[in-house]
Amino acid sequence: MKISIIKIGGNVIDYPEKLDEFLELFSRFPGHKILVHGGGVMASRFGESMGVMPEMVDGRRITDRDTLDIVTMVYAGLINKNMVAKLQELKQNAIGLTGADGNLIRSAKRAVKDIDYGYVGDVIEVNTKFLGQLLELGLVPLVNAITHDKKGQLLNTNADSIASALATSMAKEHEVNLYYCFNKAGVLIDEKNENSIIPLINEDIYNELKKENVIHSGMIPKLDNAFKALEEGVNNVWIGKAENLIFASKGKLSGTIIEKHRYDLY
Amino acid sequence: MKISIIKIGGNVIDYPEKLDEFLELFSRFPGHKILVHGGGVMASRFGESMGVMPEMVDGRRITDRDTLDIVTMVYAGLINKNMVAKLQELKQNAIGLTGADGNLIRSAKRAVKDIDYGYVGDVIEVNTKFLGQLLELGLVPLVNAITHDKKGQLLNTNADSIASALATSMAKEHEVNLYYCFNKAGVLIDEKNENSIIPLINEDIYNELKKENVIHSGMIPKLDNAFKALEEGVNNVWIGKAENLIFASKGKLSGTIIEKHRYDLY
Repeated sequence: MKISIIKIGGNVIDYPEKLDEFLELFSRFPGHKILVHGGGVMASRFGESMGVMPEMVDGRRITDRDTLDIVTMVYAGLINKNMVAKLQELKQNAIGLTGADGNLIRSAKRAVKDIDYGYVGDVIEVNTKFLGQLLELGLVPLVNAITHDKKGQLLNTNADSIASALATSMAKEHEVNLYYCFNKAGVLIDEKNENSIIPLINEDIYNELKKENVIHSGMIPKLDNAFKALEEGVNNVWIGKAENLIFASKGKLSGTIIEKHRYDLY
Repeated sequence: MKISIIKIGGNVIDYPEKLDEFLELFSRFPGHKILVHGGGVMASRFGESMGVMPEMVDGRRITDRDTLDIVTMVYAGLINKNMVAKLQELKQNAIGLTGADGNLIRSAKRAVKDIDYGYVGDVIEVNTKFLGQLLELGLVPLVNAITHDKKGQLLNTNADSIASALATSMAKEHEVNLYYCFNKAGVLIDEKNENSIIPLINEDIYNELKKENVIHSGMIPKLDNAFKALEEGVNNVWIGKAENLIFASKGKLSGTIIEKHRYDLY
């Protein structure tokens, strides 16, 4: 089957109006689809109100036991279930899942080297059979950033990595497109000009743009991840703003499409 | 198919050791099974740590918007997902669900008469087809006390009522046994003597015991609910302690079994 995997982040989740607008667009997105989400700043805010301060090392959050409880409550409870209820209203048969539910995503606690990230997991295995069964039943899975190690431990996991792991795993048997919604309209030629979107990037173009320093810093890991997903069989990867997602589904230019194909003109 | 629906409450959930012990027993419980849970005092404790004090009217909790957020986080997030992870470790293919997931349980916000209970829902409809599909896939559903109105609103719902609604709805097509775990070993002849369990109650015995005032006060609504479930097709209802549940599954006397059958001896 054809499957769209769509990842949204804090810039949608943190704003109730934007989230409602997005869910309405998402409900009109055609075909089999899976939504992946983290929790944005909401987890930090709830944590602080309970006296649990976010602990950051090198800009990355450390997940101690209290923080794990909070992200589990906020991601898997508050955010996930409210989105499920809203999508049900929009006649989408949504089902909210952590990686523990149906053993959907097994991960391993990150080994302690220089930094102990605490209860953070890196994806090991996706239960593609189960996910396929849910899609065949007409369900719309909403997967949040909590996974488990199959030894009884929940683990906080990067939502981008989850989206990518679901996409590459499902791509072994299905045609998968991956959509990353973020705070820019796509890969831009001029960072300050939202209209300077590069509509299509393949490896040749990517290498060229890196050489010319058009693509740099934060955009490089994003695109490296996208090309890695393509290497592992994902059909194409879209990067853009959540509000333009619906245009992407109609094949209109609305963000940056990353393709493996080389367009040999000769 | 044959389905066991088991409801646990705060006297198990609130004690990590008892909960672990229960989950181990539950994992050995044979056949298709569904676990139903609320959240005990944990929701109140988290609420208080966030400055949301439980508001009670006539001994019943009022669910305002903040309280709804807290019970959604604690029931559907913290408690449900940790239980799912532990059952996965025990090789049970658990899946955690609110009533919103897969539109499992649609409820209606309780009308305001003398008291405004806030975001409290009473069960209207169970999606028995979906629940049957999950059981057929070999999944073990863990259903918590959050439902939805199919109009985008989550609602806090009594876990006993959810267990009963699931049981009576599934009983239309399946053989269903319902197990209520609570803080006593069963219906007791002498409240202070845990060994004075009445092993079997049918309607005749029930009426007799009420007349003799052996069964009174808090036990009456519990038994009335049990008989109502039997009227609606549930096979039998068991009341007892969570730690004795495994004996019940083996047909050993371990609590009180409530049956509709009248044993006509003539």
